[in-house]
Amino acid sequence: MQYMLFPQIVKRHRSNEHSDLRGTIDANMKPFYPPDPNFETRVRSSAGMQGVLSTLGAELTLVRAGEAHLTAPFDMRFSQQDGFLHAGIVTTLMDSACGYAAFTLMPAASRVLSVEFKVNLLAPAKGQGFRAEGRVIKSGRTLTVCEGKLFAIEEEEESLCAIMQATMICIRDK
Amino acid sequence: MQYMLFPQIVKRHRSNEHSDLRGTIDANMKPFYPPDPNFETRVRSSAGMQGVLSTLGAELTLVRAGEAHLTAPFDMRFSQQDGFLHAGIVTTLMDSACGYAAFTLMPAASRVLSVEFKVNLLAPAKGQGFRAEGRVIKSGRTLTVCEGKLFAIEEEEESLCAIMQATMICIRDK
Amino acid sequence: MQYMLFPQIVKRHRSNEHSDLRGTIDANMKPFYPPDPNFETRVRSSAGMQGVLSTLGAELTLVRAGEAHLTAPFDMRFSQQDGFLHAGIVTTLMDSACGYAAFTLMPAASRVLSVEFKVNLLAPAKGQGFRAEGRVIKSGRTLTVCEGKLFAIEEEEESLCAIMQATMICIRDK
Amino acid sequence: MQYMLFPQIVKRHRSNEHSDLRGTIDANMKPFYPPDPNFETRVRSSAGMQGVLSTLGAELTLVRAGEAHLTAPFDMRFSQQDGFLHAGIVTTLMDSACGYAAFTLMPAASRVLSVEFKVNLLAPAKGQGFRAEGRVIKSGRTLTVCEGKLFAIEEEEESLCAIMQATMICIRDK
Repeated sequence: MQYMLFPQIVKRHRSNEHSDLRGTIDANMKPFYPPDPNFETRVRSSAGMQGVLSTLGAELTLVRAGEAHLTAPFDMRFSQQDGFLHAGIVTTLMDSACGYAAFTLMPAASRVLSVEFKVNLLAPAKGQGFRAEGRVIKSGRTLTVCEGKLFAIEEEEESLCAIMQATMICIRDK
Repeated sequence: MQYMLFPQIVKRHRSNEHSDLRGTIDANMKPFYPPDPNFETRVRSSAGMQGVLSTLGAELTLVRAGEAHLTAPFDMRFSQQDGFLHAGIVTTLMDSACGYAAFTLMPAASRVLSVEFKVNLLAPAKGQGFRAEGRVIKSGRTLTVCEGKLFAIEEEEESLCAIMQATMICIRDK
Repeated sequence: MQYMLFPQIVKRHRSNEHSDLRGTIDANMKPFYPPDPNFETRVRSSAGMQGVLSTLGAELTLVRAGEAHLTAPFDMRFSQQDGFLHAGIVTTLMDSACGYAAFTLMPAASRVLSVEFKVNLLAPAKGQGFRAEGRVIKSGRTLTVCEGKLFAIEEEEESLCAIMQATMICIRDK
Repeated sequence: MQYMLFPQIVKRHRSNEHSDLRGTIDANMKPFYPPDPNFETRVRSSAGMQGVLSTLGAELTLVRAGEAHLTAPFDMRFSQQDGFLHAGIVTTLMDSACGYAAFTLMPAASRVLSVEFKVNLLAPAKGQGFRAEGRVIKSGRTLTVCEGKLFAIEEEEESLCAIMQATMICIRDK
């Protein structure tokens, strides 16, 4: 049962939050128009092919235009030396959330790859479970800029542990 | 046998290379003087407590003042959707190498934590195994700046897949 | 008159926005408590000593606990090859805004220095003027993590050009 | 005479150094083949159109395939509050050096823009002059990854003050 998720301790209301940055883009009269109406199916199919997400017990809990969330339980097999979730695994969850947020806005015949990302670790990743959020800040034809956040979940409380600023690239099938 | 390392395909001569940046610091007459002569034991003991390194089958192949290398085999359990090593696992290896490079120069009664890092992914992480290098660029009392590199190993050939620029912090025991 | 500001084209209502991240910290019951009640005087005095801000014609338009805004006019003397504001000057404005946001929460006898930052350029910095926002995401005793944004101002409209993720350090006077 | 360069205090022998990373790429049998033999003329022409370089008194001291260096004098007009060169100006020099290093490998009918960069500030930028180095780590059709360094020059001695990891994009003329 090591991989059981903790959906009951995820504060669902957060899913309805809009970040300041996305609000700004909306205020600039640029809402997201996904070119592929089946983006959620495409995102979930790609996530199903990620060995690492299944190994981490991670689950896509939200997929919508320009945004994706992942939840995963804590597991000592992915800890650093003090017993917290390793910064690289924190990164894995945020990178996947950002990549899939970007992928929602890409065309049907395409793939998404990470170009680069930057992570600030704000607090030890200590919790029963974790929730990663990825949001698109700027969507371009080739490059998409995203922000990610990682929340630790403990006793139904969430706290921000890490933030990411990332660039994703769209590889179009020939 | 899934976790078996491939030491025979690691080009050992790379271990003797000095990066341009470290050379510059040396040229400034600032060689590294580790305050704790037992730094290697301390680094290896800390690495032994990282659940994630054991889960990845990673092994410290070099520890010296200001530098640490890790090697790990490829494993589909940590792949992204195209079957390459996930960018977050690439990060895990470079972050650990950088953290331990920094830790070699910290005092005996201390811990090392990652403050932040930035990763550029240069090529798909495709190989039979991987080697991460971490080197100290600037060692300070509180903060240490490191650079990391991740090489894919294929048929005894190494190719650079990713680079990292990272900040580590020294937490002194009270 | 080259350095004249364009306060009339700055949308003041933005000053009342709260970012998602700061909201999260507030939600965690961690509002900002500046240890120095005279933080605004201290911030403005430090800004007055920055040669670069005076050279750029930049002005601090908002200083409050955990937040600082700067406005500057466009000036061809700071352009890149296509006639837009150079990415390094975009960075200068965001770095100063982030540094002063962090400095509002530092003690009276201290200095602030940038440890590192990461910038994504979302759109050409093209406008009559620019507004930089800096906000504290996480305030610690030694390190403070901030996010910065740069808006181009054109005909009273603002658009997001660049984002920053930065780490600042507090140097205490002895 | 404020803008006079200090070529006599620049250690020219550094220009002959090869970074570890570029050496690795060379070792992988991937030397740089600039598609445009007139890349130096093209780079110098673009630099001549940068208002900011002329304002800073910066000069391109080296342009070769995959590499560019800039030198600039110290000037109090670009200082931060402690009298050192502002981190944003440090960034301006490294960003331009990296951008032009990337531009040497781009086709004749193209432009170069910065996508993103990350800077670590290692020491106060204190000196009579400064030298920025930009080098290509990975050259792709669309994106180019570079590393930058900023050296302070004092009494003919150079010391490393800052490092950059940057992504540049090639915009092809239609």
